[in-house]
Amino acid sequence: MKARVTVTLKTGVLDPQGKAIEGALASLGVDGVSSVRQGKVFDIELSGNDQASAHAALTTACEKLLANTVIENYRIDLMA
Amino acid sequence: MKARVTVTLKTGVLDPQGKAIEGALASLGVDGVSSVRQGKVFDIELSGNDQASAHAALTTACEKLLANTVIENYRIDLMA
Repeated sequence: MKARVTVTLKTGVLDPQGKAIEGALASLGVDGVSSVRQGKVFDIELSGNDQASAHAALTTACEKLLANTVIENYRIDLMA
Repeated sequence: MKARVTVTLKTGVLDPQGKAIEGALASLGVDGVSSVRQGKVFDIELSGNDQASAHAALTTACEKLLANTVIENYRIDLMA
């Protein structure tokens, strides 16, 4: 089974990397960009086909390793 | 208008960061993970509401800055 985990900064948390990208895009002449926030994505392959246990394993993975839950949100999408 | 750009490594490109995460998850006791690949996600806000021009601006942004098209794929999702 495949899954995608997306980790993004919570609203209100400063994102200097996103700000730098905004500045760089403006210098490169890409117009109309008003804000950029950067996050991470993890494409994970799991052995087994049980959706519930896959979701449980991924939640543990996010809480323990993939996301810093103080400042980041995570979202788990399971693909068949 | 909001958009999400997802940048992932092309198939066949080595991902040592993903391998490290795989190892760390195994050490933490998260079972059933057979492969991890890490990518980046950019949540972008654009001024204006024209889908076509937004898509064109984001394509330029990806080609020039956000993705290294030699080793990475990008995907643009526009949200209303």
